[in-house]
Amino acid sequence: MKIEYPGIVPEEQMPRFSGRPSFMKLPWWGKDMDVSVAVIGVPFDGGTTFQSGARMGPWAIRQASWGLYPYSRVHRISLADARLADAGDLRVVPMSVPDTLMLVEHQLGAFPGGTRFLALGGDHSVTLGLLRDVVRRRGPVGLIHFDAHSDLWDELWGQRYNHATVFRRAWEEGLILPDRTIQVGIRGSLDHPDEDGEADRLGILQVSTDTWLSQGTRTTIHQIRNRVGRGPVYLSVDLDVVDPAYAPGTGTPEAGGPSSHMLLSVLRGLAGLSFVGADVVELAPPLDPTIASGLVAATVAQEALFLLTLAP
Amino acid sequence: MKIEYPGIVPEEQMPRFSGRPSFMKLPWWGKDMDVSVAVIGVPFDGGTTFQSGARMGPWAIRQASWGLYPYSRVHRISLADARLADAGDLRVVPMSVPDTLMLVEHQLGAFPGGTRFLALGGDHSVTLGLLRDVVRRRGPVGLIHFDAHSDLWDELWGQRYNHATVFRRAWEEGLILPDRTIQVGIRGSLDHPDEDGEADRLGILQVSTDTWLSQGTRTTIHQIRNRVGRGPVYLSVDLDVVDPAYAPGTGTPEAGGPSSHMLLSVLRGLAGLSFVGADVVELAPPLDPTIASGLVAATVAQEALFLLTLAP
Amino acid sequence: MKIEYPGIVPEEQMPRFSGRPSFMKLPWWGKDMDVSVAVIGVPFDGGTTFQSGARMGPWAIRQASWGLYPYSRVHRISLADARLADAGDLRVVPMSVPDTLMLVEHQLGAFPGGTRFLALGGDHSVTLGLLRDVVRRRGPVGLIHFDAHSDLWDELWGQRYNHATVFRRAWEEGLILPDRTIQVGIRGSLDHPDEDGEADRLGILQVSTDTWLSQGTRTTIHQIRNRVGRGPVYLSVDLDVVDPAYAPGTGTPEAGGPSSHMLLSVLRGLAGLSFVGADVVELAPPLDPTIASGLVAATVAQEALFLLTLAP
Amino acid sequence: MKIEYPGIVPEEQMPRFSGRPSFMKLPWWGKDMDVSVAVIGVPFDGGTTFQSGARMGPWAIRQASWGLYPYSRVHRISLADARLADAGDLRVVPMSVPDTLMLVEHQLGAFPGGTRFLALGGDHSVTLGLLRDVVRRRGPVGLIHFDAHSDLWDELWGQRYNHATVFRRAWEEGLILPDRTIQVGIRGSLDHPDEDGEADRLGILQVSTDTWLSQGTRTTIHQIRNRVGRGPVYLSVDLDVVDPAYAPGTGTPEAGGPSSHMLLSVLRGLAGLSFVGADVVELAPPLDPTIASGLVAATVAQEALFLLTLAP
Amino acid sequence: MKIEYPGIVPEEQMPRFSGRPSFMKLPWWGKDMDVSVAVIGVPFDGGTTFQSGARMGPWAIRQASWGLYPYSRVHRISLADARLADAGDLRVVPMSVPDTLMLVEHQLGAFPGGTRFLALGGDHSVTLGLLRDVVRRRGPVGLIHFDAHSDLWDELWGQRYNHATVFRRAWEEGLILPDRTIQVGIRGSLDHPDEDGEADRLGILQVSTDTWLSQGTRTTIHQIRNRVGRGPVYLSVDLDVVDPAYAPGTGTPEAGGPSSHMLLSVLRGLAGLSFVGADVVELAPPLDPTIASGLVAATVAQEALFLLTLAP
Amino acid sequence: MKIEYPGIVPEEQMPRFSGRPSFMKLPWWGKDMDVSVAVIGVPFDGGTTFQSGARMGPWAIRQASWGLYPYSRVHRISLADARLADAGDLRVVPMSVPDTLMLVEHQLGAFPGGTRFLALGGDHSVTLGLLRDVVRRRGPVGLIHFDAHSDLWDELWGQRYNHATVFRRAWEEGLILPDRTIQVGIRGSLDHPDEDGEADRLGILQVSTDTWLSQGTRTTIHQIRNRVGRGPVYLSVDLDVVDPAYAPGTGTPEAGGPSSHMLLSVLRGLAGLSFVGADVVELAPPLDPTIASGLVAATVAQEALFLLTLAP
Repeated sequence: MKIEYPGIVPEEQMPRFSGRPSFMKLPWWGKDMDVSVAVIGVPFDGGTTFQSGARMGPWAIRQASWGLYPYSRVHRISLADARLADAGDLRVVPMSVPDTLMLVEHQLGAFPGGTRFLALGGDHSVTLGLLRDVVRRRGPVGLIHFDAHSDLWDELWGQRYNHATVFRRAWEEGLILPDRTIQVGIRGSLDHPDEDGEADRLGILQVSTDTWLSQGTRTTIHQIRNRVGRGPVYLSVDLDVVDPAYAPGTGTPEAGGPSSHMLLSVLRGLAGLSFVGADVVELAPPLDPTIASGLVAATVAQEALFLLTLAP
Repeated sequence: MKIEYPGIVPEEQMPRFSGRPSFMKLPWWGKDMDVSVAVIGVPFDGGTTFQSGARMGPWAIRQASWGLYPYSRVHRISLADARLADAGDLRVVPMSVPDTLMLVEHQLGAFPGGTRFLALGGDHSVTLGLLRDVVRRRGPVGLIHFDAHSDLWDELWGQRYNHATVFRRAWEEGLILPDRTIQVGIRGSLDHPDEDGEADRLGILQVSTDTWLSQGTRTTIHQIRNRVGRGPVYLSVDLDVVDPAYAPGTGTPEAGGPSSHMLLSVLRGLAGLSFVGADVVELAPPLDPTIASGLVAATVAQEALFLLTLAP
Repeated sequence: MKIEYPGIVPEEQMPRFSGRPSFMKLPWWGKDMDVSVAVIGVPFDGGTTFQSGARMGPWAIRQASWGLYPYSRVHRISLADARLADAGDLRVVPMSVPDTLMLVEHQLGAFPGGTRFLALGGDHSVTLGLLRDVVRRRGPVGLIHFDAHSDLWDELWGQRYNHATVFRRAWEEGLILPDRTIQVGIRGSLDHPDEDGEADRLGILQVSTDTWLSQGTRTTIHQIRNRVGRGPVYLSVDLDVVDPAYAPGTGTPEAGGPSSHMLLSVLRGLAGLSFVGADVVELAPPLDPTIASGLVAATVAQEALFLLTLAP
Repeated sequence: MKIEYPGIVPEEQMPRFSGRPSFMKLPWWGKDMDVSVAVIGVPFDGGTTFQSGARMGPWAIRQASWGLYPYSRVHRISLADARLADAGDLRVVPMSVPDTLMLVEHQLGAFPGGTRFLALGGDHSVTLGLLRDVVRRRGPVGLIHFDAHSDLWDELWGQRYNHATVFRRAWEEGLILPDRTIQVGIRGSLDHPDEDGEADRLGILQVSTDTWLSQGTRTTIHQIRNRVGRGPVYLSVDLDVVDPAYAPGTGTPEAGGPSSHMLLSVLRGLAGLSFVGADVVELAPPLDPTIASGLVAATVAQEALFLLTLAP
Repeated sequence: MKIEYPGIVPEEQMPRFSGRPSFMKLPWWGKDMDVSVAVIGVPFDGGTTFQSGARMGPWAIRQASWGLYPYSRVHRISLADARLADAGDLRVVPMSVPDTLMLVEHQLGAFPGGTRFLALGGDHSVTLGLLRDVVRRRGPVGLIHFDAHSDLWDELWGQRYNHATVFRRAWEEGLILPDRTIQVGIRGSLDHPDEDGEADRLGILQVSTDTWLSQGTRTTIHQIRNRVGRGPVYLSVDLDVVDPAYAPGTGTPEAGGPSSHMLLSVLRGLAGLSFVGADVVELAPPLDPTIASGLVAATVAQEALFLLTLAP
Repeated sequence: MKIEYPGIVPEEQMPRFSGRPSFMKLPWWGKDMDVSVAVIGVPFDGGTTFQSGARMGPWAIRQASWGLYPYSRVHRISLADARLADAGDLRVVPMSVPDTLMLVEHQLGAFPGGTRFLALGGDHSVTLGLLRDVVRRRGPVGLIHFDAHSDLWDELWGQRYNHATVFRRAWEEGLILPDRTIQVGIRGSLDHPDEDGEADRLGILQVSTDTWLSQGTRTTIHQIRNRVGRGPVYLSVDLDVVDPAYAPGTGTPEAGGPSSHMLLSVLRGLAGLSFVGADVVELAPPLDPTIASGLVAATVAQEALFLLTLAP
């Protein structure tokens, strides 16, 4: 007999600001549950290179998600009809990126083979652990990466594993297929001119914020869909892709970004792609005293659930 | 002899951050004044279903309005030439929606018949009391409703009177004319698929945020003007219609909304319609430590004063 | 088979800022569990007469409690050895005090007879529902009430059920035994001189903040213990009893109060009394951007768990 | 006929968080009113030498005062029985201390001779203008000055009129009687050793925070009463006298101060002295996102009203 | 021998959140350095007419700039190749606009003739002192002025020198050439209808926010470039030109503004103009608890450095 | 020729909120300077086990220190007469405690042998690196440790180097002399009963917060002085030793602590002990939107400078 939630009355009767504190008030995951997508928190900020705080991200995203509902006007489906669950947080070692990456991969191995994940970060370094699990299950994947930064540095202060090097490592490990990889929203100044052409050299396509905002939603959607094609694809959204007006609560904010509406509009145009996993990372709750940053993260995460559910 | 304001020197000589704390530093209303539009606060949040705090809204809107001036570059008129006054707050009963609605309607009855109101909320449930007074004076009205949510639920937790049901009640009571009613800015996820077509079934026209942002300001203005026509019309603006980046200080924020410039631009295109009343609701001051949310509410309220003043 | 928590690894291995979000990371309660004390949230602020926000209290207290540990240096016992669980939130009706009181009492009836509760508020009006359940199970009780306000008003704005009348109602309903009741920390200005002697007229003993601070911890402990004696006693702590420096996040703060150390010291001196229930109320999270107010509430709640566990 | 307040229903029926926004909800002052004490705001921060923001002080103190009531348990009198009014704000010139001082003095001259004032600052430089008016009416006065700083500098950056020189100027102008002047709560580091003995050289008695906290409330009260005697005395409270934990919202906070309870306790011991005026200054609202700093200022101001009312 | 920075290891090895706290981590300026552009802070808010706080601006902009890098993807140059330095703050007299203007001009005179400045405000009144120095060195200049307000008032409260009159004074003193002057982003309500045509009467071109947003980035860039031509031009950016969602931390915010992306895009289109000086003013750090406002100011200042570096 | 500060005018003429941003506006350290005490920042939070953010501590302490002056009324000396300098920040590796400890020790080695340090943290793990340098120079030391927590854990999540194990490591490495070590302010709940006697078993004396507050300042000073005697002693102050009301901006706050006045009073009683180094750690600036926490840290650091200067 299961005891999913410590509630006297059914969750449905509770005001949304109370009751089960899971993401979107999904049922808790249990070891014998058959779920199509599991939401997991990865409360880690040991790979952060500027402002810390992302370790508090998962619960803040969950709390901000309580006011979100299961039915999408755009996709015309309800998450209530999917087999979803919130599996709580993964164990991390706050002071070690490599140990945490191993732990992340190891813990995900405890889920049945067909389970897909929506991970709530945590800083971007955790994506490497997530990708390793995805690729172990399904082979190398395409990547749709929304971010103000390309995260393609080779190392920083002699450290090869951190949130600025994650996709360089993923590329080196063969986890992502460069010709099916696209980075959207890149902007901001660079340390060296060389960085400007780096994605190109790695065979990765970049769409800058300027390009995105000038070409518009529709063209950007087509560009992404063309790039990733029909194969398995992973979605990684760094919250700092949106302008700091929309999400000041992130460790490396970059002025001059798109609105959350622009991001959500593009995401909604990606339905039908073969998403095999997704993450929403870099919410640092102490850096925003309002709910706004968390709400963007939660709404993006909700959209990711729709995309995962709609994937063939 | 009147003592409008406790000031040693005329209000005009005071720095705007000091002196009379009324909305836009309007004169206080007095029982023998003949005003065309009275500004009133309705400090109530007993109808709130998610985050509370809107009871503190009226004074926060007033404070945020101190830096606003009477002359509009767009409309080329000055509110200094209209007969306007701030009539303070209405009495409410914080723990009862029905009692508050009765009180609101009753107190408004104390004003001369021709007075029109700009109400500063308070949560959206108070609009029902305001509409009852408007309709008592002038008969059923058209409605221009800016909001992220349609507020057309039938009940919640067995409660028929709250901020999520206000326009369902107004429709049932015959206060609004569905074929002259338009809801603009609706977005966000739904609890049940049925909600999606509900406005349609009630004969109410909805313009989603997506439609608004893709069709642009001019088309949206035409759409609204066509819908409401020449008859008397009420304006109700829920602050959550704008994106949480612009107004995080609201109880049920919804990511992915328009900017305040888009909202103000549409409002400015509505001059000349027969506005008989207006409200700006759902500012919850404790939820935004900056002046930003209050300033949007105050600027929208200022625009509503222009619209009321310009109404034939 | 139980699924207490959605965790891949045992809760004990998780960093304290992650994992199970229950109060002090207690196990979730389940219907077949035999617990000595159940922690319950009562997320309600419909009885608030000044600043709202306490409906968000329960989860904020839980989150602030994650850094608290089970062993007390003072009492030399560990809560790990007691049968404790977090039973989640009770259902409330945000816009009705009477309905919520009935619901509170009704839901508590679902627990086995011997279960005692530590309730996390919510505004103080919920204490009436809690007391009704306690008294139904065990008969009238003594009361130790820490608060800046006596909450003995008869009504406010015609409303008899709210957070300012809760102990008047409890007295009228015979739930508390006046000669075993003591109110500690009362301070602040009054609306009418009559209020000053009201507790006296009802046979209730009051210890003002001034008296408390001048007579000190030890005397105050003796005074309380003498007053309540050996019979069953209920503990109700309104967070506003401490100075707003320690807990600004409360709806009706009152300057000039004791420190949290003074409050905790007195509480720690009450071990061995026959506590049959307890609540910690009036944390309004939106009113304090730091963790401080929540941490006081959580630490007081932890102390209440020690007192309930140590009760004969 | 007077129109004191723009209210449809009597102020007494309004919830305290709504209605007339005056200090403690006092009636507004009008030119024909006979008041014993007038509350006035002086919204000026042009004399600030560290962090600015005090110009927003008066309305923030008023707002924080709404939850305060007229009857004092300590003094056993009600302000409802005194003739008090809120006269709004004085006009200031934000960019000129000398002009503002002249304006302050000039505007106070508009009140009948017997009117006494409780001024809400504003930075401490405004006290010089207030004292000039007091002394013009009643001759030189004794001074009870609570502050972390002695404000006895001769000049700063070549500027002789600012909040760090105010009592040097008052001394030079003969406004205060040194042998009836006492400064309480002085603490913090100094720029030059010479400053340490400066009060002494001017014949002014200083009680440091250390002395105050070690000798206790009772002795401090005696010390003050002995110093100022029976003659007319002015009370000036700089909010930074209390510890920044109690009032972080002030321009020159100084760690290691007394609690607000200690300050209020001493103030309550001063009843019966011949107070002829008072001010509470240096609340800088933008520097504290909570109500706490404003509440200390408001409660001190309330106590000042009791003292002014109880003065022979 | 120079001691530019108190660092044990070279600045380049330090994490960006640590080390030298200069703007963008530029070297500190020293008296014998030959720099093309010097960054200077002007920590003054004595000319502010609404909310104060801008005196804390310079260090807040510096701190927000630490995450910015020297290479621009747009301009394809690196500031590392220019001779730039941070010369710290200018001395100001917080309580006097005229004295501060004289000091600003005087101190700038200490730099070699060819030095150009990027000034970090401070309120807008300091621009007058900066312009006087620029004009003394190079003669009257064209002006590109981004602001929500025209700052063309003649006086306020009898004060001729403040942040609302700065460009009226500059015009009167012949510092700016009206036919090469353009104000961009003007919006908001006015006190008197006359203000509307004032720029016109002075021969200054204004582009309102409405015009800007409807005509788009490219047209606006052309309009500016055509207006100012090839002669020497000064850039002055008031942070309040962007919407308060992007920068609530400013003294006179005005709703309905452009995004920071729109502002940055226009600025990036101005490369090649003959910029002889620039300022970014009106950041008031206490009014925004997040980094967002400071980050917009810092990114605009970084762009100004590119423009100054690229000027012929 | 030295260029200590990028200032046009001497630092002494600058308002304290401007100019050189060093700790207490001390001169910057340069390689050829002979200083008695160097202030250094250690911007590291990779050893944090609960809330992160302490990496931003050093500059926040510096900024909060600008209003502090060099002369102490208590000690009657001026820091202006000592040879002090701010040496900026040490290089750290944000994602590795062991690497950072080595770097800390290594960099300190670059200073002349007689230099003593006041370190501004950073989390408490950095103290181990600091102690290693101290002991290398002078041999094992006594320790005065103010903290809510004993930091004597052996490991956490398999990690032996973090802020909870720092004094266990120091003890093991023989850096501190147990019989000359005292921990003051310890409080809060424990994970296991065994922890309670751990200090005892290691030969370290603990004074709990309860003992401290009940025995008072004078006794506590004597207790500390007796314990550490005349030999070299290191001072380590974890900001969380004070109550969260005084310093909410810290990663592991613990309710029920002493005031900042109590802490400062004890520190002031330690003059004359042979201090050879000191640190003030665990300020996490993002967790307190006010200056209060930083000001406590800065004032404690200032007091540490007095103690280091007064050491024989």
